[in-house]
Amino acid sequence: MKISARNVLEGTVKDVKKGATTSHVLINVKGLTLTASITNEAVDELGLKPGLQVKTIVKASDVMVAVE
Amino acid sequence: MKISARNVLEGTVKDVKKGATTSHVLINVKGLTLTASITNEAVDELGLKPGLQVKTIVKASDVMVAVE
Amino acid sequence: MKISARNVLEGTVKDVKKGATTSHVLINVKGLTLTASITNEAVDELGLKPGLQVKTIVKASDVMVAVE
Amino acid sequence: MKISARNVLEGTVKDVKKGATTSHVLINVKGLTLTASITNEAVDELGLKPGLQVKTIVKASDVMVAVE
Amino acid sequence: MKISARNVLEGTVKDVKKGATTSHVLINVKGLTLTASITNEAVDELGLKPGLQVKTIVKASDVMVAVE
Amino acid sequence: MKISARNVLEGTVKDVKKGATTSHVLINVKGLTLTASITNEAVDELGLKPGLQVKTIVKASDVMVAVE
Repeated sequence: MKISARNVLEGTVKDVKKGATTSHVLINVKGLTLTASITNEAVDELGLKPGLQVKTIVKASDVMVAVE
Repeated sequence: MKISARNVLEGTVKDVKKGATTSHVLINVKGLTLTASITNEAVDELGLKPGLQVKTIVKASDVMVAVE
Repeated sequence: MKISARNVLEGTVKDVKKGATTSHVLINVKGLTLTASITNEAVDELGLKPGLQVKTIVKASDVMVAVE
Repeated sequence: MKISARNVLEGTVKDVKKGATTSHVLINVKGLTLTASITNEAVDELGLKPGLQVKTIVKASDVMVAVE
Repeated sequence: MKISARNVLEGTVKDVKKGATTSHVLINVKGLTLTASITNEAVDELGLKPGLQVKTIVKASDVMVAVE
Repeated sequence: MKISARNVLEGTVKDVKKGATTSHVLINVKGLTLTASITNEAVDELGLKPGLQVKTIVKASDVMVAVE
């Protein structure tokens, strides 16, 4: 499947913190730790757990830039 | 300044494609190319141009995960 | 590929309006017309054009609800 | 009220799953089930419950497209 | 119409900058200038122009916080 | 730090409601109450609590407009 989102980064799940409805998934991408806030249902359906290889996806319109 | 957004990645601007109102900024982060879709005004105000060191910022609720 | 986004709707491209950097893609989903604002690059890379079967994807945190 | 968001879909609430701060609302739109992740406060203020007719609203810049 | 989005601010349109597909609408809210990036179609359909009273709407999950 | 997001509003934290993974932060901006839905980790890292001066940040592409 090809997706219109411009940012697709290969990584590995480091940790999954489940909440009442919302989970935070920590993903290692080239030594950087990214955080995804997704539904518990998605975590279960994708079988997300530490060590699993995943893609981290972000739409270009959701990316900001900052300069010091 | 500390920001609540969980994903703040150091990078270098590779290219800036200006449109009529919206620009696409390509940023090199550890050899990966990220794309940010931001306003032309922001590009001008931040002085974004190839070679500039920047931070790429994404809110955790805008990050998705996929598995093959 | 399985994605964490909870809303994945099958549809058919009705129209593609290209701008300077940003395109608007109109998609027919069960007789409803949805609009996606995506980059021109994504339109080219996915080969989007009228009649093509596509999936429309929306993260649950980007969906609002209203009542009259 | 007219809203700038391009995607406004009529539907019926199927289920409301309340979390500690965030609820997931399942909405039936033409036989498809959409999921909205919204605040508990919004659920209470709008009186969302199964059977209620609602509008599902998504901004065009939050819609992605994928092709197989 | 009641909407689940938690941030609904009354304001007045200051300026509309139309691009090829995307417009930037500047809105005065209590002396502050907010910018909304929306489709040209929405600008036309809502008849947005300087002086018009509008509501500025933002979903709580799209709001970030920063401290110096 | 300068950020590309066009909407940066000075305010004061009114309340912090912590959930299992996600917090809702209420912020007073010129007498208006804004709500930000952010991670518990961000609340802790930024030391958010009532009375603290903060900046409320919203990307222009996340702002909608409505007219009665």
